Amino acid sequence: MHDSTFFQTVIEEELKKLSFPSAPVELYEPVSYMLAMTGKRLRPSLVLMAVEVFGGDYQKAIFPALGIEVFHNFTLLHDDIMDKAPLRRSKETVHKKWNADIAILSGDAMFVKASELMLRVDDAIARNVLTLFYRTATEVCEGQQLDMNYEKRDSVSIDEYISMISLKTASLLACSLKTGALVAGTTEMNAELVYDFGKNIGIAFQLHDDMLDVYGDEQKFGKLTGGDIIANKKTFLLLKALETAEGNNLKQLKKWLSMKEFDSQEKIEAMKEVFSSLNIRDHSEEKTEIFFQQAMYSLDKIDVPEENK
Amino acid sequence: MHDSTFFQTVIEEELKKLSFPSAPVELYEPVSYMLAMTGKRLRPSLVLMAVEVFGGDYQKAIFPALGIEVFHNFTLLHDDIMDKAPLRRSKETVHKKWNADIAILSGDAMFVKASELMLRVDDAIARNVLTLFYRTATEVCEGQQLDMNYEKRDSVSIDEYISMISLKTASLLACSLKTGALVAGTTEMNAELVYDFGKNIGIAFQLHDDMLDVYGDEQKFGKLTGGDIIANKKTFLLLKALETAEGNNLKQLKKWLSMKEFDSQEKIEAMKEVFSSLNIRDHSEEKTEIFFQQAMYSLDKIDVPEENK
Repeated sequence: MHDSTFFQTVIEEELKKLSFPSAPVELYEPVSYMLAMTGKRLRPSLVLMAVEVFGGDYQKAIFPALGIEVFHNFTLLHDDIMDKAPLRRSKETVHKKWNADIAILSGDAMFVKASELMLRVDDAIARNVLTLFYRTATEVCEGQQLDMNYEKRDSVSIDEYISMISLKTASLLACSLKTGALVAGTTEMNAELVYDFGKNIGIAFQLHDDMLDVYGDEQKFGKLTGGDIIANKKTFLLLKALETAEGNNLKQLKKWLSMKEFDSQEKIEAMKEVFSSLNIRDHSEEKTEIFFQQAMYSLDKIDVPEENK
Repeated sequence: MHDSTFFQTVIEEELKKLSFPSAPVELYEPVSYMLAMTGKRLRPSLVLMAVEVFGGDYQKAIFPALGIEVFHNFTLLHDDIMDKAPLRRSKETVHKKWNADIAILSGDAMFVKASELMLRVDDAIARNVLTLFYRTATEVCEGQQLDMNYEKRDSVSIDEYISMISLKTASLLACSLKTGALVAGTTEMNAELVYDFGKNIGIAFQLHDDMLDVYGDEQKFGKLTGGDIIANKKTFLLLKALETAEGNNLKQLKKWLSMKEFDSQEKIEAMKEVFSSLNIRDHSEEKTEIFFQQAMYSLDKIDVPEENK
């Protein structure tokens, strides 16, 4: 069994080998630019890891793994346009560096490329791999739409938030693992279990990430904390606070949420104080734990030698 | 053998049966809106027709035919954003009626749906159908990018223009016919020939359409003529005129092309006068005839009973 650093290196090298036509340069340059922003390559690494967990040869899954990474980058590219994000990983986003039209079309071309890569599996599993991929792609679109809807809505329930992150984020992680399982040719039951594991661990990770954005160690976390608070982002923390706050806490929340101009540090401190008096961090960790436990429950039931897990 | 009206009705009815989730409504309402704009349904009809030409049962090709129609509408949706088009078939475009973000995302969801529909063919041909579809989708993206590039460029050669319409328009017509051929299970040679036929007839149609935009009978053509002239659209006619004009003709062309404010009818008349003195209509019809003849050459070689053609 290889480790995640190994898989990350494999993916990084294979991505470099992906060839795109040289023209039209306006279409393909942004694609290469986007794919060259080296990240953790988490999703494709999960594909390859899952293959090995189920006793298969990871090399047989390289193309679908790349497909999932290209698809993920396509969603980031289009999301950046919708979010009007100027930067991604400290580099200009495609719609800023070029323009929105080029970002739309390059994204479309990436999505086609991703689909082509997903098809590069054995005939025996092609239909299952693609059906899963299309279902996931639909869910990611739905999740992004819900995310945009919720940004504009006054009130969003915690269940709605969980459904949204489940579609937008967790389903692609689940799809990555199940794709690996399909390539390895494991049982249908195992493939379903690893999908459920991925879904729940994905939700747990997103909740954990929300928490780290407020309480993370900036050194360790590698980015400034409080960004979600400054942006009034409707994460689990804020939604739980809005759900449970009364009296002065509620007044404070509403005041800071509606304030147009403020000192960032002051707002972060004030919101953290409200969170603290409502035990929001504990609630968040409890919720994360629930999904983590559900993930472990699925993992336990997967029928492979214990050391592979 | 059924006729095109029959197939158009079939497609119209089958499109109505396509089901989309009820939520998020912001994602799926624009999709239904777009698909409900009844058009000629040319591409899916070509799929079904091709199946019958090659002796197959058209009903087996309904899903991929719908897939191609959904794909075509996805490209229109994204193109409308890029072209900043306010209207399509006299109705507000999606990005106008909703907004650009929703138009981007609904388009993405349509592409996923189109891919799903393309997969609904027998296992034996699925890989070929999808490979053709993805290749075509890539070409359509490339064609759209070239179209945008050429709009901004001062000079575009006629060969470049033909390559662009071949990618942007003709390749999907060719793909439609070949998809039908694949479903019918005809020979590889026949499938290639019908593809070539579609490519060349597609280019011929686009050239003919460019000509009709200037010289068409408004009553018969169903839309006002001269739109391309007013918009300085780089069609074959304008490119040929720019290529051959000298002296006063060239001066006139440049004058009208650079004029910001003008009387539409006056500009149309002036440009038509230049075209006329350069025999542009004849050149256009000759060029159309070349592609038409190439199409007929491929059609001739297709090995099916003569009456099927």
